[in-house]
Amino acid sequence: VRALVLQSGALTLQEIDRPNEPDGCLIRVTRAGICGTDLQMVNGYADFNGVLGHEFVGIVESTPPADSRWLGKRVVGEINVGCHTCYWCVRQVKEHCVNRTVLGIRGRDGAFAEFLSLPAANLHEVPDAVADDVAVFVEPVAAACRIVEQLEIMSITRIAVLGDGRLGNLIAQVLRLRTKRLVLLGRHRRKLEIARAMGITAKEESAVHDQFDVVIEATGRPDGLKRAMELVMPRGTIVLKSTFHDAAGAPLWPIPVQEITVVGSRCGPFAPAMDLLASGAVNTEPLVAATVGFGEHQAAFLSARHELKVLFDPQR
Amino acid sequence: VRALVLQSGALTLQEIDRPNEPDGCLIRVTRAGICGTDLQMVNGYADFNGVLGHEFVGIVESTPPADSRWLGKRVVGEINVGCHTCYWCVRQVKEHCVNRTVLGIRGRDGAFAEFLSLPAANLHEVPDAVADDVAVFVEPVAAACRIVEQLEIMSITRIAVLGDGRLGNLIAQVLRLRTKRLVLLGRHRRKLEIARAMGITAKEESAVHDQFDVVIEATGRPDGLKRAMELVMPRGTIVLKSTFHDAAGAPLWPIPVQEITVVGSRCGPFAPAMDLLASGAVNTEPLVAATVGFGEHQAAFLSARHELKVLFDPQR
Repeated sequence: VRALVLQSGALTLQEIDRPNEPDGCLIRVTRAGICGTDLQMVNGYADFNGVLGHEFVGIVESTPPADSRWLGKRVVGEINVGCHTCYWCVRQVKEHCVNRTVLGIRGRDGAFAEFLSLPAANLHEVPDAVADDVAVFVEPVAAACRIVEQLEIMSITRIAVLGDGRLGNLIAQVLRLRTKRLVLLGRHRRKLEIARAMGITAKEESAVHDQFDVVIEATGRPDGLKRAMELVMPRGTIVLKSTFHDAAGAPLWPIPVQEITVVGSRCGPFAPAMDLLASGAVNTEPLVAATVGFGEHQAAFLSARHELKVLFDPQR
Repeated sequence: VRALVLQSGALTLQEIDRPNEPDGCLIRVTRAGICGTDLQMVNGYADFNGVLGHEFVGIVESTPPADSRWLGKRVVGEINVGCHTCYWCVRQVKEHCVNRTVLGIRGRDGAFAEFLSLPAANLHEVPDAVADDVAVFVEPVAAACRIVEQLEIMSITRIAVLGDGRLGNLIAQVLRLRTKRLVLLGRHRRKLEIARAMGITAKEESAVHDQFDVVIEATGRPDGLKRAMELVMPRGTIVLKSTFHDAAGAPLWPIPVQEITVVGSRCGPFAPAMDLLASGAVNTEPLVAATVGFGEHQAAFLSARHELKVLFDPQR
């Protein structure tokens, strides 16, 4: 099995054993996407050693006997695998399981491989109408949908999405279904143009001095929170999506003085994300800059630093 | 008029003119309290030049003609003075008025003086049963009551109040009326003992490794948020009260990864605070370490760094 293995911060293409998890379904990966978290992990975050990658679509090739109905299905998968016994697992919230493994992030080999393994409980079948190149976006679109679970967004809610990268774009696409008063703010002329071509109001970040009810921080920059605090109304809400690992570097006094609420937001629900992709309400085609084989991983990771989405096709 | 004037970070006792604000009530201060914000401002925060102090009780000595019903009343006062015309003032939220002055903090002489001036709209009459030494606590108790406005606290909500100082103690007293599952965490043996003598569960901060639904950050320390993030449950809430002005210094990745909500909290409602003090539900007597005249301001400020509350009596 060919796989991109991260070890001590170095990513290499290796031949590894086929996953063999007693309670896991074996999935042949057909597409996998590079995410900002992957880029950070190659920079040393998370101390993870193993196969990288957590955005994927694939075909179930073998299952434990009890899960045989999944055989041959085309699936995407939730990335958190719970212990089934802790406080959070009992409440069906495996995202916060204290003993969790996370696909390609924590204690579990990931999706940049010909095969991966996940329990059937994590799988979601992909409708025929949704192509692999689209289905591979379910995981990040779910992360955008998490915001809708956490905040009440009304048609009059003024939202700034701060960050014109892959996640910022998807968040803008999801949230503009709730409010027309949304603007995407970024620093990259080309990414802003792509967003505009999709009908999103998109502006150069430094040119905006308005204040918003809600600011979604999706910059991936350690100073993103500082900028978000400037852009949010008193008593407004900042949604923090970036998992930057440097110190904040900014004084946090605006939070109490302006009575700002900061909401941390991570993984989200797959079902509504799949619906948004199936209906075309969220459009991913303009985001895909390239689809490459694992052999081109160095170029792929370099490209992913500047492009919205780079996909792997393990068959190439 | 004798007053403690802050200028370029230096606090001195001066003779100044009696306040003469056309739409203000002139109040003869009978007690004023030193707050953590005052200590920070003497350290240079806020760039404020003028009479310091914002916790007070006093007697109305003169008023504009329209407000003559306040003459002779014993009052406490809300500290934010609004412009009456901005977005926030139209919504009756003068705490966030974009043009606001704040008693002894921003653009307005404060309470460490024989006389101060505030508009009648800011005043609250003090019931006869509430002594000056108690009424002077209405402002900080109101700040504690603000938390009850912002969060739903149920009898099963587990709360840690982080910080055993003057504000932490008052917050613990207010919130334990809502939940018995509250613990005050601090680093000062004597302050923890005072809290215990008041019936509050109080523990050495470093000895606690539990996780709480809600953590109230009232340490005044720049690393307070870091400790609060360790003490809060996934999907739990941190209330940020400290207005520390250094950079956070801690990575904020636990906020998205644990999906923590951080709620900034500042000034609160005077009416419920007065009720809590009048009924004795909040007890301030054990907090008062000393009551001194303005002449002893240097000793008072030194003492306030270690004691829970130091009061000024302008008549001494």
